[in-house]
Amino acid sequence: MTTAQLADSAVSFGPAVALSCRECGARIPLGPHYVCVECFGPLEIAYDFHQPGRPAVTRELIESGPASIWRYAPLLPVPADVAAKPNLNPGWTRLVHARNLGRELGLRKLHIKDDTGNPTHSFKDRVVAIALEAARTFGFTTLSCSSTGNLAGAVCAAAARAGLRACVFIPAGLEQAKIVMAAVYGGELIAIDGTYDEVNRFCSELIGDEAGEGWGFVNVNLRPYYAEGSKTLAYEIAEQLGWKLPEQIVIPIASGSQLTKIDKGFKELIALGLVEDRPYKVFGAQANGCSPVSAAFKAGHDVVQPVRPDTIAKSLAIGNPADGPYVLDIARRTGGAVEDVTDAEVVDAIRLLARTEGVFAETAGGVTVGVLRKLVETGKLDPDAETVVINSGDGLKTLDAVADAGVTATIKPSLAAFHAARG
Amino acid sequence: MTTAQLADSAVSFGPAVALSCRECGARIPLGPHYVCVECFGPLEIAYDFHQPGRPAVTRELIESGPASIWRYAPLLPVPADVAAKPNLNPGWTRLVHARNLGRELGLRKLHIKDDTGNPTHSFKDRVVAIALEAARTFGFTTLSCSSTGNLAGAVCAAAARAGLRACVFIPAGLEQAKIVMAAVYGGELIAIDGTYDEVNRFCSELIGDEAGEGWGFVNVNLRPYYAEGSKTLAYEIAEQLGWKLPEQIVIPIASGSQLTKIDKGFKELIALGLVEDRPYKVFGAQANGCSPVSAAFKAGHDVVQPVRPDTIAKSLAIGNPADGPYVLDIARRTGGAVEDVTDAEVVDAIRLLARTEGVFAETAGGVTVGVLRKLVETGKLDPDAETVVINSGDGLKTLDAVADAGVTATIKPSLAAFHAARG
Repeated sequence: MTTAQLADSAVSFGPAVALSCRECGARIPLGPHYVCVECFGPLEIAYDFHQPGRPAVTRELIESGPASIWRYAPLLPVPADVAAKPNLNPGWTRLVHARNLGRELGLRKLHIKDDTGNPTHSFKDRVVAIALEAARTFGFTTLSCSSTGNLAGAVCAAAARAGLRACVFIPAGLEQAKIVMAAVYGGELIAIDGTYDEVNRFCSELIGDEAGEGWGFVNVNLRPYYAEGSKTLAYEIAEQLGWKLPEQIVIPIASGSQLTKIDKGFKELIALGLVEDRPYKVFGAQANGCSPVSAAFKAGHDVVQPVRPDTIAKSLAIGNPADGPYVLDIARRTGGAVEDVTDAEVVDAIRLLARTEGVFAETAGGVTVGVLRKLVETGKLDPDAETVVINSGDGLKTLDAVADAGVTATIKPSLAAFHAARG
Repeated sequence: MTTAQLADSAVSFGPAVALSCRECGARIPLGPHYVCVECFGPLEIAYDFHQPGRPAVTRELIESGPASIWRYAPLLPVPADVAAKPNLNPGWTRLVHARNLGRELGLRKLHIKDDTGNPTHSFKDRVVAIALEAARTFGFTTLSCSSTGNLAGAVCAAAARAGLRACVFIPAGLEQAKIVMAAVYGGELIAIDGTYDEVNRFCSELIGDEAGEGWGFVNVNLRPYYAEGSKTLAYEIAEQLGWKLPEQIVIPIASGSQLTKIDKGFKELIALGLVEDRPYKVFGAQANGCSPVSAAFKAGHDVVQPVRPDTIAKSLAIGNPADGPYVLDIARRTGGAVEDVTDAEVVDAIRLLARTEGVFAETAGGVTVGVLRKLVETGKLDPDAETVVINSGDGLKTLDAVADAGVTATIKPSLAAFHAARG
């Protein structure tokens, strides 16, 4: 990028002022970068919410905004007019007061943040919307990603609407629904013989290749922007609770980015005086078959030992989670924990959530609700504290997990047949 | 019901004051009835929006309400506190400004009302929410329906959340996703060897049987309440357009109820002074393999000749549509039309919508967008008029229609393999 382009970019990123290294704190101008040149640490967005000429961010300002993540535009690395550009306008999903599930588990105040209402039915629409805007600003013409499935669909849908090309990469062997829901939007969908971690490494290589020129990989070279999208989960939860933070929150862990950004969002709300400063505990959820962060937490380690995933929760099957160490920090700092459940417990939890609240989660949601249950049973959650659990994706994308749910009986259209079938 | 219960009911139904026969105009008190005892015509809800003691329904009142159909509670047969009772809080879904699709079709101002954002990803959550509230008021303990798939899921999810039993009836041979998405909520799901019309007849029989006592069939004995839920599509479209009616609207036809209630909603908004009184044209969409209303429209008939459905658009596969004659009336009165498309055109339209707007519709949405295209091509739609098309359900529920959408290539994780695969 030229200097003039960089100056334009500064205007385009709203309250964001720089990229900052999460490890050494070094700052560089906003650009399509994701690794610190000083120490190779990950870069994230730094903000100045009190720049002269920008309106103060108040509850009223937010409440007067659109029913999408763009109500929080003043807290995101996007221009003020972002909602006017073609995108999927995700967010502002339901916060479900889960009285039935709470009763079964013994939690007095439980809410489910149900992100299945997003345009492609997972929380990934949030992060992609921010990355798309950055891609436009940087002049990228192809939107790309490495994905465990949901992200591929979100990227292809967003690119279709924005008029960008899409070329996305997934591990071979994903659920059919996730494949179709990416391919149907007309982009290129390339399966890689290998795990997600191998797909991810391949994408990093591709960025350095001539073929990757002009490509915005939402979760690689646009990752600092992309990751900020998860903050909107924190903002929405707080606003929907009546501008207060939950006391406990249970969050699925894939790369760990969602968890770290929800924590960042809560801290921003406190710093801006939008919510009362009160303690909250952050809990992470993994599937037993891909639980490197949970294992490190339990062992008291600061580093995460990569694993080769083997679980039905494919959208959480990241064996080498980039934000694993930060997740450990946050869980320990807030007094939370990281826990894991077996695939059988995942399936049980999907059914439990559906039966009690009418919410049909994908396997990732089963992991999170399963861990919620385990945390209650092992006394790690306070049953009287206000608790939120994230449902990040949709049951329609992982039907195989509950494929034995079928018709009770097949009968002829007669009362006699009906009575006979019911015994 | 006792007289006391009926009096309570009157309080519970907000602005609704009676059931009124659509044919002869006879009125009876609000109750779980659906057929006129005078003439056997269908009953619908009659309102008095100007009852003493009720607040005037203004734009401001509505805009200050929740981001769900309950913002329109003052226009629905529900109590004022309906949002506080356990339900799925559907509605307030996206109105997508479809610039890309409009450009391809030659329509200058096109919007998609995308109802896939509802909790079970179809517009059926709207109608079920109203029926659920009526079921509670009438003391029903089992929620039931005859369904082509989407309704079964919506009923089972709503019943789960409300703590009612569910027992729903579907024709055998539905899509796997629709079966699982009903069964997972834990109710009884009974498949009937026969068409939807046979399922529907069976349910009418069951209401008269001892086994059906205490059962609320949302689209049979609760139908007058249920049907009103579709009015919320009209309200939302008008509000999201900035409190004005579209000039043209294209709506899928199954029973025809959605179309007739959108028309009713528009007329109410005009009568209440919430929008300017300007003409609008209503267009209906059917699949060629189940097009009795389209056939009657084209032949100039007032009655609809039942057919045996044969189409991939199973959620529209009602061969004997109850509201068919009313649909014909509305299409003719407003200067609209009813049109149908082949299954191949349905698949093309699903892909067109996905590729241009990032919206993945089920086959019913394919029918509606396919008809939209046909209406433009045949000159029946004004390309300069503000046009809305309804997307009533989700592509994830009818994956088979686009099952050939798959990965572009499967490769080893290397740049060499990538370049080789792309040629």
